[in-house]
Amino acid sequence: MAPHVTVYEVGPRDGLQNEPAVLSVEQKLELIAALCAAGLRNVEAGSFVSPRWIPALADSGELVSRLPRPPGVRFVALVPNVQGLSRLREALARSAAPPPVDAALFVSASETHNRKNVNKGIDETLAALVEVAAAARQGGVGLRGYVSMAWGCPYEGAVSPARVVEIARRLLELGCGQVSLGDTVGVGTPNQTRDLLERLLGPVRPEQLALHLHDTRGGALASVLVGLEAGITTFDSSIGGLGGCPYAPGASGNLATEDLVYLLRGMGYETGIDWDRLLAAGALAQELVGRRLPGKTLQAELATRSAGRTPPNPLRSV
Amino acid sequence: MAPHVTVYEVGPRDGLQNEPAVLSVEQKLELIAALCAAGLRNVEAGSFVSPRWIPALADSGELVSRLPRPPGVRFVALVPNVQGLSRLREALARSAAPPPVDAALFVSASETHNRKNVNKGIDETLAALVEVAAAARQGGVGLRGYVSMAWGCPYEGAVSPARVVEIARRLLELGCGQVSLGDTVGVGTPNQTRDLLERLLGPVRPEQLALHLHDTRGGALASVLVGLEAGITTFDSSIGGLGGCPYAPGASGNLATEDLVYLLRGMGYETGIDWDRLLAAGALAQELVGRRLPGKTLQAELATRSAGRTPPNPLRSV
Repeated sequence: MAPHVTVYEVGPRDGLQNEPAVLSVEQKLELIAALCAAGLRNVEAGSFVSPRWIPALADSGELVSRLPRPPGVRFVALVPNVQGLSRLREALARSAAPPPVDAALFVSASETHNRKNVNKGIDETLAALVEVAAAARQGGVGLRGYVSMAWGCPYEGAVSPARVVEIARRLLELGCGQVSLGDTVGVGTPNQTRDLLERLLGPVRPEQLALHLHDTRGGALASVLVGLEAGITTFDSSIGGLGGCPYAPGASGNLATEDLVYLLRGMGYETGIDWDRLLAAGALAQELVGRRLPGKTLQAELATRSAGRTPPNPLRSV
Repeated sequence: MAPHVTVYEVGPRDGLQNEPAVLSVEQKLELIAALCAAGLRNVEAGSFVSPRWIPALADSGELVSRLPRPPGVRFVALVPNVQGLSRLREALARSAAPPPVDAALFVSASETHNRKNVNKGIDETLAALVEVAAAARQGGVGLRGYVSMAWGCPYEGAVSPARVVEIARRLLELGCGQVSLGDTVGVGTPNQTRDLLERLLGPVRPEQLALHLHDTRGGALASVLVGLEAGITTFDSSIGGLGGCPYAPGASGNLATEDLVYLLRGMGYETGIDWDRLLAAGALAQELVGRRLPGKTLQAELATRSAGRTPPNPLRSV
């Protein structure tokens, strides 16, 4: 049996957060439906940070209250504090048939970035999350953790891997089922990825970690390969590479889901994803935001198909 | 001492061959000068296929006769037959101070593609190259070999790795100092790369091989990582990702030199390349062809710089 890898789709939140086009709730629901139809079983759908911070996601309450409930699908939404958690729970309470929606707790490994992001230092943030985690536990809400800027930071440059390890372990202690390590600006190289994973794995099991890679410098899949070799089975990605890099306007951001899935299929991993429906979801994402998305496989496959050619993908090993 | 990796620049030939803009000889020489100034020591400069086949490179004779001779730089030009070799030698004879220019022999691992490319079958091509190789040897011209479509083909789909091995070994027997394995349409995944290298290495030494990867589906650097682990020390790439994919209009083609060099630097390899001058060469390439090039690192670094930010690259391990 082929080993299973979970593709954790973050386009509707991390992607749309950085797109100039602001989608309506209906459009977001259309995109989410296409993603679920393609077989994605984990979808980051929204964010309960202050609506003033990220206007593109200010409708997350309404969105969550209208989320579908496809079999086996879990959603997740960012929650910075107890107020955010309350808003998530209120939204779920308004749903007639709420799907599972976890709360994502996030901390940056860069002190400067964390302060710019949530107006608090790292330690203060971690201390405040104790209360959020307790409230989530009490309310039966699952938790996912994010460590951003874990490979490097636009403000501080190098980030201490020891600090990343410390924050990730704290988030696991708070009850996060999984902590996703984020290369938020896509500066990492695979040796750093290997180093980070070697520092964490052992006391931490591979399934407790995910890699959230940005492909800003083209190396995301090289780090995915290192992750696979280290036993990691969850990788975050964004349909079509939706979202850019907020620190380098015009550059690429999130690893594109199609690029990730192409590699995984070629290597013989089972993802549960329907390739044609995934490309249809990518084409829809592109149509909704009204710009050519950076995902390379999406562009190659759309161009090959529109030229009437058979895709040259031999997928020799599948 | 950091291990050395050779970045083999193919932008002026493989890149420009697929660009809609046709550059003048002066513009090509300007680009080549910028690449050499950045520290690139191997540059694919032109092609002596029939000028009718590739009008963008029809001026390769004039270009070669005017090539500079920077210390340590070797050029290479494609040569399909004895006529092409004669034209290369005539061009060199017209130069007052000719630099070393090797002849590149090329064969496709796909029978259909080889016929479309040179109007002959693979075996017939290999037989004809015996004469070219002998003439080159006699004239003191060095040889490089290329096996294209070595991972898959737009006409045939899967390509037999055993056939790739056979062709590569034949090219080495013909006297090629190095054979570059080409994923011409960027369909490969790293497991295939590992498989190909395992089949070849042993009787063949790592320095006799190069990887010529296209990043059409985002996985080129994952295959570079596999190559590095297998001991490969030469990788072909194209400045800024110059050139597209001739089989998928609008899609990406050659691995971008900046993406490759960013990964190599981050992993602690020594390339002899000046980072700022390399980015300047990328910016020049973009200006000359008049379109935004697909190289991700180039776009990220240009955007970061124009935003007045310090690049976040921590290059922790250098």
